[in-house]
Amino acid sequence: MKKPSFLFAAAALLAPVSLSLAAEDAATSYPAPSEIVAAAPASDWTAIDPNDLLVMELAPDAKGKTRRVVIQLMPAPFSQGWVGNIRKLAAAKFWDGLAIVRVQDNYVSQWGDPDGEDTAKAKKLPDGLVSVPESEYEIIPKNALGGEIAATRGATVEIAEAGEYTEVCAGSERSPNCTRYKTELNGGGETYAGYTTHYQGWPIASNLVTAWPTHCYGMVGVGRNLSPDTGTGAELYTVIGHAPRHLDRNIALVGRVIEGMEYMSSLPRGTGDLGFYKTAEERTPILSVRIASEMESDKPQPRYEFLNTESASFAKYAEARANRRDPFFIKPAGGADICNIPVPVRRKQR
Amino acid sequence: MKKPSFLFAAAALLAPVSLSLAAEDAATSYPAPSEIVAAAPASDWTAIDPNDLLVMELAPDAKGKTRRVVIQLMPAPFSQGWVGNIRKLAAAKFWDGLAIVRVQDNYVSQWGDPDGEDTAKAKKLPDGLVSVPESEYEIIPKNALGGEIAATRGATVEIAEAGEYTEVCAGSERSPNCTRYKTELNGGGETYAGYTTHYQGWPIASNLVTAWPTHCYGMVGVGRNLSPDTGTGAELYTVIGHAPRHLDRNIALVGRVIEGMEYMSSLPRGTGDLGFYKTAEERTPILSVRIASEMESDKPQPRYEFLNTESASFAKYAEARANRRDPFFIKPAGGADICNIPVPVRRKQR
Repeated sequence: MKKPSFLFAAAALLAPVSLSLAAEDAATSYPAPSEIVAAAPASDWTAIDPNDLLVMELAPDAKGKTRRVVIQLMPAPFSQGWVGNIRKLAAAKFWDGLAIVRVQDNYVSQWGDPDGEDTAKAKKLPDGLVSVPESEYEIIPKNALGGEIAATRGATVEIAEAGEYTEVCAGSERSPNCTRYKTELNGGGETYAGYTTHYQGWPIASNLVTAWPTHCYGMVGVGRNLSPDTGTGAELYTVIGHAPRHLDRNIALVGRVIEGMEYMSSLPRGTGDLGFYKTAEERTPILSVRIASEMESDKPQPRYEFLNTESASFAKYAEARANRRDPFFIKPAGGADICNIPVPVRRKQR
Repeated sequence: MKKPSFLFAAAALLAPVSLSLAAEDAATSYPAPSEIVAAAPASDWTAIDPNDLLVMELAPDAKGKTRRVVIQLMPAPFSQGWVGNIRKLAAAKFWDGLAIVRVQDNYVSQWGDPDGEDTAKAKKLPDGLVSVPESEYEIIPKNALGGEIAATRGATVEIAEAGEYTEVCAGSERSPNCTRYKTELNGGGETYAGYTTHYQGWPIASNLVTAWPTHCYGMVGVGRNLSPDTGTGAELYTVIGHAPRHLDRNIALVGRVIEGMEYMSSLPRGTGDLGFYKTAEERTPILSVRIASEMESDKPQPRYEFLNTESASFAKYAEARANRRDPFFIKPAGGADICNIPVPVRRKQR
């Protein structure tokens, strides 16, 4: 698939001939990130289990257009207490008939029960939701390079620099279990954390002691009240602006929007405090929220896949995002923050 | 002014008593960034000259609501060739009757002449527009710490580390003219540039050799075709998603939206390539674009002011953005990228 690789001016309006030529040049010298993704072999893509997809149907827009938002839930070892609650809430059809209650420009769109704080009027939560401690905002990586990030709380962790990798040791001092930590593009200099990487398809930050998912555009998090409350998962939000990374480790992240993000980001902004809508009429009603594998439908549901972040294609893609050399660009940046390297997700190719 | 300082959950719906208590705590211990801004003395605010404001009136929305977008033009020494063109385009009423032609999710909203690439149908540009060279994407800072950033191209620049500042020397080796460069929060570790700072109200990046404005949310840039074209300023865009910092030094930045940003960011996304609208009906018409001081109006126009980025209040605000300790937060981030410290701008207090 060839696409025009320059992004600005009236690119789409140029004569098709010039477009093809530009794309040809790009393909032979420095492909654009989108071209690298398009050329990735099938083996570099990982299917997403429909059991890990949350499908939210919003009320149709003013012109009657349906609006479906598909969210991929975060895998272990991150945030599984909240993710478990979200599965229970979806199974109980908790969100059906609730609404998007808040849209704050350059920040978040948030949905849940408009009466959630009013105990007399709040919709009853399903039984069996767990209260998750704040310690679950982070995990301790046991082995971050090519291996499994496991929650090994309480282990001692030692840090030693070793070239472009960093040695991370878990276990006791006498019996260390050391692994090399992949610092990828932002090694040591990342503003918020020290280190960022992509792990099994997700943007992860680490200070080499703990690791946590990052608040990038489209990520989904759990609304909460003041500490020590961590939220149940009944109230969720997605990021619609510049990455609010100051929320990392302060709120649970439980997934990301992989389709229909434009329905969340283009909603009218609320004019109340913090972007809450002042009237019920302004809210966007939620028709239903279901786990994809539990949906009642006669139609086959779309399947999705993401570009394996441990693949050669992803490494090439990330490098190209950090150093754009396709024809539109004259100065490669030399780096990219973790949220400017979004993990490619697409409908599964059959 | 006290505001609830926690941002998530149904904060606005909590009982007023809890809100006041939380705000009290914040005020006596760690104020939120918004509280620091609200408490800044009048002397820390700088008025914006109406001659530096571009006022764009969009067609009313579906409910008949007027939509005004106010843009502050970038001051010298940055991008003045394009800014001069934009003044001429506004004086010639060039944009009146044109449209928003492209909205790409998590990227940009772009406006100009839908027929701009079709020489037979394109609207005639006013006389006197200049062609600006690519070298103008950057300037060479002569003195970046508390002094004036001046364009002194061709000077040799030497770099030496000195504690939390960096010594930057212009001039010849035998006769150096050294100044200490304020590295602010992101000294040395900034992913894209090495260094970032705020200079006279604007977000600026530097590699200690050159300096340039950064592509943050709401910044306004100049659409262009392939290099060496740099655009005239007739086609503009604003950033509506995560900061696309890879565009820095590749495109001219000429200002930022200071009011009405929500009208640009909440537009329906285009479904054509790169978010261009496929049909004329999808576009949002532009009624007029004027320099504020040249507007014909019987009504007094709003005035604006920004928080002086060299003031003590701004330093306190930036520190608080990087280290949130107000009651909602449990872990201060320890840093913030330049685009996560937006410069406060408000209607002028009378």
